[in-house]
Amino acid sequence: MTVVTIERKILEKNDAVAAENRARFARRGLFVFNMVSSPGSGKTTILERTIEALKDRVRIGVVEGDVQTDLDAQRVARYSVPVVQIVTNGGCHLEARLVQDALDRLDLDALDLVVIENVGNLVCPANYDLGEAMKVVVLSTTEGDDKPLKYPAMFRQASVLVINKIDLVPYVPCDVAALRRHALQINPDLTIFETSGTTGAGLPAWCDWLIARVRRAHA
Amino acid sequence: MTVVTIERKILEKNDAVAAENRARFARRGLFVFNMVSSPGSGKTTILERTIEALKDRVRIGVVEGDVQTDLDAQRVARYSVPVVQIVTNGGCHLEARLVQDALDRLDLDALDLVVIENVGNLVCPANYDLGEAMKVVVLSTTEGDDKPLKYPAMFRQASVLVINKIDLVPYVPCDVAALRRHALQINPDLTIFETSGTTGAGLPAWCDWLIARVRRAHA
Repeated sequence: MTVVTIERKILEKNDAVAAENRARFARRGLFVFNMVSSPGSGKTTILERTIEALKDRVRIGVVEGDVQTDLDAQRVARYSVPVVQIVTNGGCHLEARLVQDALDRLDLDALDLVVIENVGNLVCPANYDLGEAMKVVVLSTTEGDDKPLKYPAMFRQASVLVINKIDLVPYVPCDVAALRRHALQINPDLTIFETSGTTGAGLPAWCDWLIARVRRAHA
Repeated sequence: MTVVTIERKILEKNDAVAAENRARFARRGLFVFNMVSSPGSGKTTILERTIEALKDRVRIGVVEGDVQTDLDAQRVARYSVPVVQIVTNGGCHLEARLVQDALDRLDLDALDLVVIENVGNLVCPANYDLGEAMKVVVLSTTEGDDKPLKYPAMFRQASVLVINKIDLVPYVPCDVAALRRHALQINPDLTIFETSGTTGAGLPAWCDWLIARVRRAHA
């Protein structure tokens, strides 16, 4: 497919800007992760619960990426954390340059943690480094246990897998053990959490892990 | 974003090949639809149930699009229908040229209906005409009722919306009336079905509609 060469040039430019973003985070000891998933996996809900749990201990800023609307930014803003919305107008992923522009609107010196919530898309955002310390991929049990095999790039690029909607396991044909096995088959280094944004299950373990990462970036 | 101009050229080429595909379908009175959705919405399960219900009355061929693996083609092939798998190797959508190549491997004269199951992605496939009569977008209730507003391009391009996993409504925060309202706000011409691939609910209505479309294309 002819698109490959074009993509390569775009990616080279993107990687250069991502390196600038990464240097900017490192200078301040900021921990930054890039949250990726299909639409509707529960990224925003997990983010809301995380902010609720941590906001008195960690200074959190959010960059929201969406194809259209600022619905997610509005949801997050209710928790009184600084949030910048990027609307890609049909673009299927965030790019480092868009994040760079968004960072200009945040007071980075007043933050410990920046969460970038990417556009809901399990394919394209895998290829775009935004300067984050790591990608966190969220997969809900309702999506099925075969998804790591079918969309391997994202699971290969991610450091953390959050298996969300764990409360729905009794009602959906998802074998969580198989899901974990498929994910580790693609990427043996994945750290895996099982959570429910609805019931709150598993979120304390995820939050503890996150605090440890924020402290390490600060040190 | 610089990508816009590049995309336009790719899309022009794509549209020319899509027109060739469309003429090929029209000559044979074939009905062809392009099934699009996020990963894990239940596209393949609906397709399996549809083939099961219709295969004695309608001659069905399938083009399976996946980023990796032929898991879906294997699932569909169990129903003894001709199926061609396109693996995009990381590509986030099917293009008309890929479908054209796949069509060469199907005996189109021996078919009444071709289903193209696109890569699981609610964003990019919206822009790529494959020559189909219509796009059918599948959205599962677990993805949330705000998705038509957040991913409007796909709902604008589609003629049919299948709201799947209707059996999970008691367990998920999804207001189906709001989902329908949001979808019709984006595209008032949408035909909407509510289905469950698991329980089979709503599938007879969908199959009846499909048979009527196949007959009309034949006439």
